[in-house]
Amino acid sequence: MTALLDRIRIVLCAPSHPGNIGASARAMQTMGLSRLVLVAPQRFPHPDVDALAAGATSVLVGTRVEATLDAALAGAVLAIGLSARPREFAGDVRPVRAAVAEALRYASEGDVALVFGNEMSGLSNSELALCQIVATIPSNPEFASLNLAAAVQIAAYELRVAASGGTVWRAPAFEPATQDEIAQLFAHGERALIALNFLRPSHPKRLLPRLRRLFARARLEKEEVNILRGIVARIEERLGHVRR
Amino acid sequence: MTALLDRIRIVLCAPSHPGNIGASARAMQTMGLSRLVLVAPQRFPHPDVDALAAGATSVLVGTRVEATLDAALAGAVLAIGLSARPREFAGDVRPVRAAVAEALRYASEGDVALVFGNEMSGLSNSELALCQIVATIPSNPEFASLNLAAAVQIAAYELRVAASGGTVWRAPAFEPATQDEIAQLFAHGERALIALNFLRPSHPKRLLPRLRRLFARARLEKEEVNILRGIVARIEERLGHVRR
Repeated sequence: MTALLDRIRIVLCAPSHPGNIGASARAMQTMGLSRLVLVAPQRFPHPDVDALAAGATSVLVGTRVEATLDAALAGAVLAIGLSARPREFAGDVRPVRAAVAEALRYASEGDVALVFGNEMSGLSNSELALCQIVATIPSNPEFASLNLAAAVQIAAYELRVAASGGTVWRAPAFEPATQDEIAQLFAHGERALIALNFLRPSHPKRLLPRLRRLFARARLEKEEVNILRGIVARIEERLGHVRR
Repeated sequence: MTALLDRIRIVLCAPSHPGNIGASARAMQTMGLSRLVLVAPQRFPHPDVDALAAGATSVLVGTRVEATLDAALAGAVLAIGLSARPREFAGDVRPVRAAVAEALRYASEGDVALVFGNEMSGLSNSELALCQIVATIPSNPEFASLNLAAAVQIAAYELRVAASGGTVWRAPAFEPATQDEIAQLFAHGERALIALNFLRPSHPKRLLPRLRRLFARARLEKEEVNILRGIVARIEERLGHVRR
């Protein structure tokens, strides 16, 4: 599925700060996007691009520069404009999560462009007019000023989650304890609690059910059962010493 | 629901670069988070903090500095550590989207901390040991080096979407055309196409169904029907002139 990400172009319209170009390249590469197109960047190439890219060189090597947004969109079957503010776009406005789902549906047919505006002014009305969908990143209405590379990061992240199903690494798996091992632990523990005079069989209250609940929630592993039985055995042993 | 966001602490462990503190504050404020805690920051306060915060002053004003992660977590009912790499954490590992859902469930009971490690080394094993859940941001396994503030941005974004249902601004709503207005437009258009000799009633092919499908997909507005009828009327008028 992540092969669809190769069909996604990130288009930055007239970016002012080369650092944002570099940070956007980094954001893209962390999510497996590779195709960056710059429309009339103010300064590119520039040392700040490389500094902020922090090693995301494979994106930078393939970065295209175009004079116009039209040229940047050539060959794409869908253009999605990112815009934070309400404006006179009378078309299809979606939260970015829904928009990237649509992007991936179209990506099976051809290239899809995600278009980002200038840092200060965002996308102009004429730039938005070239987009079929406007995507908005949900944000705090009182402070919606996302940094350009931060917006690219969120869109790229949503694309990756949508393309990959959001799979992540798993914690190392340990062998779970079996039900009978757990039952033996509880029986052993109960004897020790009685020996400790902590559990009185005549007034058991809710002690054992509460402990069962706790350990059920933790879903015990074999190794942990062994550790706990070791502790219980040591308690019994010490109590024996004391009595002797 | 966004009131739950006030229960979320973002904890940065030993951040090296003051710029990342500022960019994290900005990322938080764009998503409506307000509580930043720094554990032993290398440099704070610092001019780069304010420069990168880009006006996110309300987060910075309330930022707490603590000497240890224990102190930063005091009073929290849940701590979620962000970690990109597989490691010896044998606990509950979740994609960040699932982890923030859990964060909001706990936030109705008390404070929840999202804990981020140092830029170079991430969270140490002893820091992770204080977390009940590890959250991982899905990323490109060949280049998983998210910038610290970018990771904060994604987590804050996921929190906002989870808390607010991802509501965004809507495009201005226009009055939709009624079915009979659309039917009249089609009838009018059909006459014009016949007059143009573009549609031959004896061999209509699939022309009209294709046009109907196109306009059905676009979901016509009243104003648009008027415009289209104006165009059709003008065509008829000009054809009349030609013939005369």
